[in-house]
Amino acid sequence: MDHDIRYNQTMIRYQDGELIETTDDYVKEFPLTVIVNGHEFATIICSPNNLEELVLGFLASEGVIFKREDLLQLELDDQRGYAHVKVTTDIEQANYLSTKRMVASCCGKSREFYFQNDAAIAKTSMSTIQLSPSQILHMMAQLQAHSKTFIATGGLHNAAISDGNAFYVHRQDIGRHNALDKLYGYCIKRHISVRDKILIFSGRISSEILIKAAKIGVGMIISKSAPTTLAVQLAQDLNITAIGFVREGHFNIYSHPERVDGAPKQLHASQQCRK
Amino acid sequence: MDHDIRYNQTMIRYQDGELIETTDDYVKEFPLTVIVNGHEFATIICSPNNLEELVLGFLASEGVIFKREDLLQLELDDQRGYAHVKVTTDIEQANYLSTKRMVASCCGKSREFYFQNDAAIAKTSMSTIQLSPSQILHMMAQLQAHSKTFIATGGLHNAAISDGNAFYVHRQDIGRHNALDKLYGYCIKRHISVRDKILIFSGRISSEILIKAAKIGVGMIISKSAPTTLAVQLAQDLNITAIGFVREGHFNIYSHPERVDGAPKQLHASQQCRK
Repeated sequence: MDHDIRYNQTMIRYQDGELIETTDDYVKEFPLTVIVNGHEFATIICSPNNLEELVLGFLASEGVIFKREDLLQLELDDQRGYAHVKVTTDIEQANYLSTKRMVASCCGKSREFYFQNDAAIAKTSMSTIQLSPSQILHMMAQLQAHSKTFIATGGLHNAAISDGNAFYVHRQDIGRHNALDKLYGYCIKRHISVRDKILIFSGRISSEILIKAAKIGVGMIISKSAPTTLAVQLAQDLNITAIGFVREGHFNIYSHPERVDGAPKQLHASQQCRK
Repeated sequence: MDHDIRYNQTMIRYQDGELIETTDDYVKEFPLTVIVNGHEFATIICSPNNLEELVLGFLASEGVIFKREDLLQLELDDQRGYAHVKVTTDIEQANYLSTKRMVASCCGKSREFYFQNDAAIAKTSMSTIQLSPSQILHMMAQLQAHSKTFIATGGLHNAAISDGNAFYVHRQDIGRHNALDKLYGYCIKRHISVRDKILIFSGRISSEILIKAAKIGVGMIISKSAPTTLAVQLAQDLNITAIGFVREGHFNIYSHPERVDGAPKQLHASQQCRK
């Protein structure tokens, strides 16, 4: 069962020189503790919908499961905020890989993590997708239209997977990573191949987001916002096309432009993004 | 030495129906690995400036040091991305407290973490600060003016500490938490008491940000954006005034309105924010 991801809250509003008591909707943070084979594995702070997909995508992203069949059981106790999971994987071993503590610019991973657990899961893309500039602009317009249809409260990240034309799935979450894990879980559950699909994302393309895209397995990520230097370097290495600042009829291609109709086949000075 | 936190990058721009190769500035992600008493403690993905303050604030925030004097030595190897730190604290014990893995909505903490390490460090505010609505609007206007003066690349979080009139310090980082840790480090280094100061922040007030504000020790946090349900609950508990949506002449007070001139002394239905 999905909870409402908003909450109506009492507050005092200052407007036109007056302070008045009123109410407004804003977003819930829901702590979901994931218990794997009887051991507490992690607590995810999330928007409380699509929780089964979230747990599935999170476990795959963390390398605890590699395919749907590795998950033997998933019981959600969404009143108390627990997901009880049984997997075929040796969790002690998986846990060992991810015990190095990381404090990222925003949720999660980093250099060291990338070289350990992430390196095993992030895939170098074999995508053969080819898109026109107008398809890229259209997908971002679709994401923005969907976001408005869903929830306009603000403070939520929006993400979708598309084949370049229609959306397969659109998800929202208070956490950037969670929105992508919900997509990942959706695809794993339905055995959807994403090799030739595109990830459309409302937020900045950081290295962590790029790694998540590589784990999901898409060949292209497009964002309303900017990438970072490290994300562009990883996109180059992992054969992923990274496109940013998709807005008002223009966009920027930062890596592997060969997948966009009419673009030069390579960036001539892309090595300059390396530190 | 501070590095430039931007980088000029080659890319392909689509505009007015044409794809052309050009360059643009965007933000660096810099991995800084913190070695405490010879042990790898964490890797922080950050914007590479004010690194000494960042490390100092981070260590205090994590409960590794409690005051400036607990830090015996800090050597930055900013070419290779290492901070070598010696502290008086028993790091094994500090590490034990923070080993529970957390995956937050955005960087870091959560329910469990809050009840362990955070509970020991987050302070219930004893602030006696009192502000007028126009001071609140003025501080946010100052933050926005400072942000433009510094860097307009986008994708950076801005944070400042103020006494309600002038800014003491303004910091930027690609990571929300890092921007606040840089402020925290600045204050610790100079033994500045923040009990009666205000934290002004460009991003959303999540529970993690609210906990960070409580660790720094301010009595009020004001943001351009919204708080979450959990953040409001924590603000209520920790005696912190949380103010959001400060923009265009209006704002919302979500907790402890008694510190704002002319506001009701309490929110009548604030218990409804609890789950």
